Amino acid sequence: MFKIRHALSVTREADFAAWYQAVIAEADLAEESGVRGCMVIKPWGYGIWERIQRLLDDRIKAAGHENCYFPIFIPLANFEREASHVDGFAKEMAVVTHHRLIAGENGGLIPDPEAKLEEPLIVRPTSETIFGDAMARWIQSWRDLPLKLNQWANVVRWEMRTRMFLRTSEFLWQEGHTAHADEAEAKEHTLRMLEVYRACAEEDLALPVIAGEKPEHERFPGAVETWSIEAMMQDGKALQAGTSHYLGTNFSEAAGIQYQDREGQQTFCHTTSWGVSTRMVGGVIMTHGDDDGLRVPPAIAPHQVVILPMLRDKPEDDALLAYCEELRASLAGKSVLGEPLRVLLDKRHGKAAAKRWDWVRKGAPLIIEVGGRDMENGVVSLLRRDGLWDAESGKPAFQTPSKESAAGEIPAMLEDMQRSMLGEARDRREAAITRGVTEFSELERIYGGDAKHPGWTEVQWSKPTGEALEKVVERLKALKLTARNAPMDAEPANGSCIFTGEPAVERILIARAY
Amino acid sequence: MFKIRHALSVTREADFAAWYQAVIAEADLAEESGVRGCMVIKPWGYGIWERIQRLLDDRIKAAGHENCYFPIFIPLANFEREASHVDGFAKEMAVVTHHRLIAGENGGLIPDPEAKLEEPLIVRPTSETIFGDAMARWIQSWRDLPLKLNQWANVVRWEMRTRMFLRTSEFLWQEGHTAHADEAEAKEHTLRMLEVYRACAEEDLALPVIAGEKPEHERFPGAVETWSIEAMMQDGKALQAGTSHYLGTNFSEAAGIQYQDREGQQTFCHTTSWGVSTRMVGGVIMTHGDDDGLRVPPAIAPHQVVILPMLRDKPEDDALLAYCEELRASLAGKSVLGEPLRVLLDKRHGKAAAKRWDWVRKGAPLIIEVGGRDMENGVVSLLRRDGLWDAESGKPAFQTPSKESAAGEIPAMLEDMQRSMLGEARDRREAAITRGVTEFSELERIYGGDAKHPGWTEVQWSKPTGEALEKVVERLKALKLTARNAPMDAEPANGSCIFTGEPAVERILIARAY
Repeated sequence: MFKIRHALSVTREADFAAWYQAVIAEADLAEESGVRGCMVIKPWGYGIWERIQRLLDDRIKAAGHENCYFPIFIPLANFEREASHVDGFAKEMAVVTHHRLIAGENGGLIPDPEAKLEEPLIVRPTSETIFGDAMARWIQSWRDLPLKLNQWANVVRWEMRTRMFLRTSEFLWQEGHTAHADEAEAKEHTLRMLEVYRACAEEDLALPVIAGEKPEHERFPGAVETWSIEAMMQDGKALQAGTSHYLGTNFSEAAGIQYQDREGQQTFCHTTSWGVSTRMVGGVIMTHGDDDGLRVPPAIAPHQVVILPMLRDKPEDDALLAYCEELRASLAGKSVLGEPLRVLLDKRHGKAAAKRWDWVRKGAPLIIEVGGRDMENGVVSLLRRDGLWDAESGKPAFQTPSKESAAGEIPAMLEDMQRSMLGEARDRREAAITRGVTEFSELERIYGGDAKHPGWTEVQWSKPTGEALEKVVERLKALKLTARNAPMDAEPANGSCIFTGEPAVERILIARAY
Repeated sequence: MFKIRHALSVTREADFAAWYQAVIAEADLAEESGVRGCMVIKPWGYGIWERIQRLLDDRIKAAGHENCYFPIFIPLANFEREASHVDGFAKEMAVVTHHRLIAGENGGLIPDPEAKLEEPLIVRPTSETIFGDAMARWIQSWRDLPLKLNQWANVVRWEMRTRMFLRTSEFLWQEGHTAHADEAEAKEHTLRMLEVYRACAEEDLALPVIAGEKPEHERFPGAVETWSIEAMMQDGKALQAGTSHYLGTNFSEAAGIQYQDREGQQTFCHTTSWGVSTRMVGGVIMTHGDDDGLRVPPAIAPHQVVILPMLRDKPEDDALLAYCEELRASLAGKSVLGEPLRVLLDKRHGKAAAKRWDWVRKGAPLIIEVGGRDMENGVVSLLRRDGLWDAESGKPAFQTPSKESAAGEIPAMLEDMQRSMLGEARDRREAAITRGVTEFSELERIYGGDAKHPGWTEVQWSKPTGEALEKVVERLKALKLTARNAPMDAEPANGSCIFTGEPAVERILIARAY
């Protein structure tokens, strides 16, 4: 057996956090901007986000929503109307206080005291309150319901500890906001959008997720119920990958979102909100990356196939490029996962091996190298990113189909890769969930010891509230654990609460989390 | 002849500014948000912007650019590095000074004095300086050039007088930023992107534009050359619809964007930037709107065909809906302007006439009403938004093709509408440009009198600079005029400067402007 020389200098096993940063750097996804807590999303990282946007936007529109755009600034008074909402965000909001700069005494510019705003403006951390104002204007009668809106936007939450894609002061997301006639319809819609997120995560990003309700203390500020999809990263930690909130009439009462029902009564609407962000890209990295860099699922890969002609700056290059161009053209017409195949012919000059490893680290699903000898033999040298190494030889596992058969086989190969990446991640997750734990001491054993990646645990609990819940949270915190969600597909509870010994009412997932 | 009863309560002729606001309200495009100078872009308005984005993004990518995303906040020190740049924007910048709120003495929230930023952050009015920082990190050698980036983002300029779409404190745009090895290549690229904008405006938005160089005093702060596309609105005023800047080495020197050339010398890059914004939507309204509301060119219409079944809440509705669904399905497979046809079957209940006028005001290109009698006769009632009225009868000019022939004819009808809207606007503009004016007194006659929509004037000038230019600007200002651009396709100058009497060096467009 050969020892494989991986493309990254740090492995997942050696230092997962350092490996994550290395993938981001080596796959050219993003970098620190020099502006506190904000990142620059570089073209390959942004290309992945654009793919996620396109696919999720289609799903959101198919569920009957229309896109719109609301102001980035929210007047402070507006934000204050829903008490628990403002409490939840006040500590981390960027505040605009002036609208002009003038020269200061030392020559530099300072905010102009004459241009101080009468009322500070908040840079939106989320937009329930400003959507709420518009909903109050737009909704008059039951005929105007449901109102189903979505926007793609940047938001700002002044995070003290940031990590690229996972937690940044500014991030990109979509936020959906809907208003409904009654509780039943609003709750149904909350779960419908949770299902849209589950489908997007699993089918598009190949991220297996568990959908369920967040416990009370993890609710969105102002929500009556918060539901999430949770994904397991390769280090066994949980990543909350999307949330959907049933807001009851909290925001309707604060903003006056009322409608005249069929009987002529003025009634408060029930609203929902739900969001998914650039954090998803972090989830893709930590789920699919390996010690050679990123692996991008074909559905969200900006380029699914990259063709690399082995150019030598010699007259023969022309014939080689023509051969590659034929391959590119034959692929560009194919359909993969319901869309036209995305293929790049990378004509940059430079060493063939360097270009190959660039694309390996970036995680392009299929890399096709074509040299003079390939052309003579009418073949191509094809490398699957999800089967990079030949275990026997320790070398890259090139396949050499004929050019024609490659073009025919590639769509099925990409679709197989999309499926198998999901399957691999799901198998890994299932193997790392411990079920049937009935004693708290068992949690201490699992998480208190030296186990590097202890995974998740499913336990039964009595769904405590108030002080009893606080006590549970403290006990979990001592083990650096959090309660993730109560999976909607879990078996009914049939035992005792692992924390209180009382009869359990549901099952809940316990994990360390990002 | 009948008097046509138009769908808006105000005509272009009676009060163009009020008409503009009425179209925005009646076509449900946008509204004031309650946040100073910011608007809410409603679904129909945002849908038009999404179409513009999609088409322009394709053009920008086809020209070799990659999308990315930079932070919304720019440190003040960063902004200050290019002197004329900061001078140009300092008066209208939103300034973030705090990152937390706390309860104030009167119970409300106030910015927490303990959470004051050491250095204020600017909400980006444009991103040359922060792209420049990254370019300085990313570019090492001639091999890294050209670097061609673009981002879609929101920006904030604190405007004192705002008008929806045309001038708002926050607006949406794309901003391209590129770095090149030398002046020739950067200048060529500046003009290439101007041509991309011209093509997008004319081919996608059906907005005829004149491309040319802005005079010195209208340059972007920090630019060496600013080029624009200028469109004429129906009131004869000019709208600057897009700009492309050659920045020389101004931003490279400020940020240290250098590369090692083929001879090993460290050399400053020449950079460009160029942007198009939601202002374009205002241009579409003022170019294509009429006294019945908006008319959206088919290429950027969210729905190109709207089918309105005349539902009666009776059992017969089912057959009618099935008939309409057949029509919808037969249209959805068609190709129009290189894309799949976009068709909506509007199943909302409500009066047929009310629904028709909704879509007339919104400007859907083709409206198809289907009633029971149409179904019996196997026909549909089709209304072209660009030929709404029958001049003889004063009634809507319905055509009644058979259902089958309608499906066959509609793609060509939409493509004809796209062409004819451009042609109509171009003819109107050409008729409203006065050429051959050689005396300033002639400008006084044209613009000083009672003429409601005096249009544009092309004059020759000596391209004065400094004080001489200031004098010209003052003289124009007295007539509420501005110099728009020196059209690149104009005939060479062959006369005297209309302002100074000196030999002219170029022709320039004079107009009132938004």
